[in-house]
Order: sequence, then C-alpha cells, then structure tokens
Amino acid sequence: MRTLYHFTLLPACRIVRSALGEKKLEVDLKAERIWEQRDDFLAVNPAGDVPVLIEPDGTTLTELWVITEYLDEVYPDVPLLGDDPLARAETRRLMVWFDQRFGREVTDNLVGEKVLRRFYRTGQPVSDRIREGKERIGFHLDYIGYLAEQRNWLAGEDLTYADLVAAAHLSAVDYLGDIPWEKYHEAKNWYARVKSRPSFRPILDELVPGVAPARHYRDLDF
Amino acid sequence: MRTLYHFTLLPACRIVRSALGEKKLEVDLKAERIWEQRDDFLAVNPAGDVPVLIEPDGTTLTELWVITEYLDEVYPDVPLLGDDPLARAETRRLMVWFDQRFGREVTDNLVGEKVLRRFYRTGQPVSDRIREGKERIGFHLDYIGYLAEQRNWLAGEDLTYADLVAAAHLSAVDYLGDIPWEKYHEAKNWYARVKSRPSFRPILDELVPGVAPARHYRDLDF
Repeated sequence: MRTLYHFTLLPACRIVRSALGEKKLEVDLKAERIWEQRDDFLAVNPAGDVPVLIEPDGTTLTELWVITEYLDEVYPDVPLLGDDPLARAETRRLMVWFDQRFGREVTDNLVGEKVLRRFYRTGQPVSDRIREGKERIGFHLDYIGYLAEQRNWLAGEDLTYADLVAAAHLSAVDYLGDIPWEKYHEAKNWYARVKSRPSFRPILDELVPGVAPARHYRDLDF
Repeated sequence: MRTLYHFTLLPACRIVRSALGEKKLEVDLKAERIWEQRDDFLAVNPAGDVPVLIEPDGTTLTELWVITEYLDEVYPDVPLLGDDPLARAETRRLMVWFDQRFGREVTDNLVGEKVLRRFYRTGQPVSDRIREGKERIGFHLDYIGYLAEQRNWLAGEDLTYADLVAAAHLSAVDYLGDIPWEKYHEAKNWYARVKSRPSFRPILDELVPGVAPARHYRDLDF
C-alpha cells in the first residue's frame, strides 16, 4: 500500500493528496505532528518535513517538487502538468508563483502566525504579519480570477497542478476564514469548481485538532 | 538566437548558464542590473527576476525550476535530470536541498549580506547572518563529500543538475573567499572536477562589477 505522512493544514500535503485523488491512487494517510520530531518519523525523513510519500514498492519521496514530478511521470494517465513542454512550463510557472509567492505573502503570514506558532510554541502571533497577509490576498484573487476567465482552469483548458497548488493554499487560509470571497466572483467560481471535485472533498472534511474551521469552509455554496 | 537575462553572481543564473553549456546550446547573455527594475526589463518579466531565458522561437521562460525542466524535456541529448523516474527524483531532491537549504543557510547569509545589500541599498551587512552562514558551510561540504565519494557525481554516476546547483551556490560563496576548502578534501575534489568543465569556465572568468574575487577563485588548483 501507498503511505503519505502529512499534516492536514499544510498546502504541500494538500497538493499531494489532491493529486493522488485526481490520479485515482489509493493512499494510507498518516497524520504526523511534525513539531514533535518523533524518532520514528526522523528515521523515515531525516529532514523532519512532510509530505513524505512512500510508494507501494518502498520508494520514499520527499519535497513537493519531487513528488509532483514523480507522480506525473509514473502515473501519466491523468496528466497534471500538461500535454507538451510549453504547457508544462506554464503549469510549473504558476506552481512556483502560488507555492512560493502566495505562500510567502499570504499563507505564511496567516496560517503560520495564527496556527503553526501555537503548535511549534514560537510565541504570540505577530499582528503586522497577519495584516500584511490579509492585504496581499486581493492581488492574488484578482490574478486567479483573470486566469480562470481566460482559460477555464488556471494553466489552460484542463485542471493541472497549478489549480491544486493555488487551491491548497487558498483552502488553508480559508479554514481560518480569511478570504474575502464576496469581492472576488471569478476566483470564487473557480474555487467552487475545485471544492466540488472528489479529490478535494476528503481534505475539506478533515479538522485540525484544536482549531475550528470557518463556518462556510466546507460548503460548496459559500 | 537564444537570450539569457542574468546577474552573474546569482546561483540560479549560474545553473542555467552551466546547463546550457553542458547541452551545447549557444546563448546571447544580457547582464541585467535587476535592482534598477528597468521598464524594458519589466516588460520582458513583470516579476523583475532573473534568470529569464528567451528561446529562439520567442518562448519566454522564467523561474529556475521551469527552465531546468524545460531544457531537459526539449533538449534531451545531454540529460541533466537522470535516466528514469527514480534517478530524476533523487536529482530533484538534491536540487531542492542545495538551492533552498544551502541557499537559505549559506548563500543568502553571505552573498546576500556582503554583496546584494550593496546593490539593493538595503543597509549594512548583518554580522550575525554572516557568522551563521560561515557556521553552516561545513555541514554542507561534508554532505557533498559523502555523496561524491559514494556516487562519483552527487546524484549518481553521471553529472546532473544536482552538481550544477550545488556548484553554482558554492562558486558564488567562493567568489567571496568564504569556503574553507583545506578542511574538506572530498568536496574540494568534486568541485575541482566541476570547475574544469567547459560549461563552467566562462562563469568563473566573469567579474562582478566593483567586487574583487578571492585570489584562488578561478584556479583549477586551489
């Protein structure tokens, strides 16, 4: 059986889970409290990070970029990168954009300050960072709306990793109720389509221990 | 003709240049003073970053991860990722390790503080960061030595992007004279092999305006 070590609120873990779902690959989930740095887990991944994917043949994969490329190479029936080098370049460009730029400007400032600090016990949330995170969301929602209107999905006609990366980050922030959906109709319509996919439902059904989700978080009509 | 916008000391630009060299792809280099954020350059890449690679057919590629994957897909004669999904996963794992971890712990602390601050005019170097950068180098040189001894090149029998990424970061730090080579023989032997490659020589021959390189920087015997 395939195994994924994960922490439910981390975008990288959500990306891998939804990719496995899109590709119809079954997986045994192991929730890892990474801040505890358990010896048994460090034996699996000395870097102490999630996601860690262990394939049925024992192959152990770490790092989001390693896992996403591997899955598309080994299980190409449902391609998530695109059909040709140019399409794949555009998907990867958007993956980098949302994972690194949205991640740094929004997710780290909101999920990092409000939730991860509590688990890692690194002190009180920094209000300046929370404010900065909220200020930067609109710019990214506009861009998502623009792409989704032009292209159907973010990187083109078909759903790709670009959608999964953007949705994973948005959903983690949306868990905390920090996305002003009412002002961003196109982005909201696109996110409603991601939310309704069977690959995404189980992620939204999962709770973070000790952290209540926003009321609308799981709803398809939000 | 192919065009690469670059800034010579940035590892990501060195990686793309050496990859083009290994693949014997000619390129017209344009040195970009990214801190000036020229309008003409922002028209090429609104993100304002280098490297930017413009292919002969006009295809414009940004972001290291996008460019490295694209080059191996479109010009596979000299593969730099590896021959099968597992080999490519290992190459990518080491690319992430050196570009993100070495980058954050060493390059950002040394090249960032000592050189980039001056160009970006963001104040005086922070001595704590310079000290931290120097402290972390040994750990990474040990790891490079371990890999090179086991495997010939870092990811396996053949030279891959893993070597180019590690060497690009090391060479940028070595420009400043901050690598204690005398204590790390295996890493030094591996780096001497990278230095002697025709793909790497032109990079070492280039000077950063206003910054003198360490005396041994270009030498094959260092």
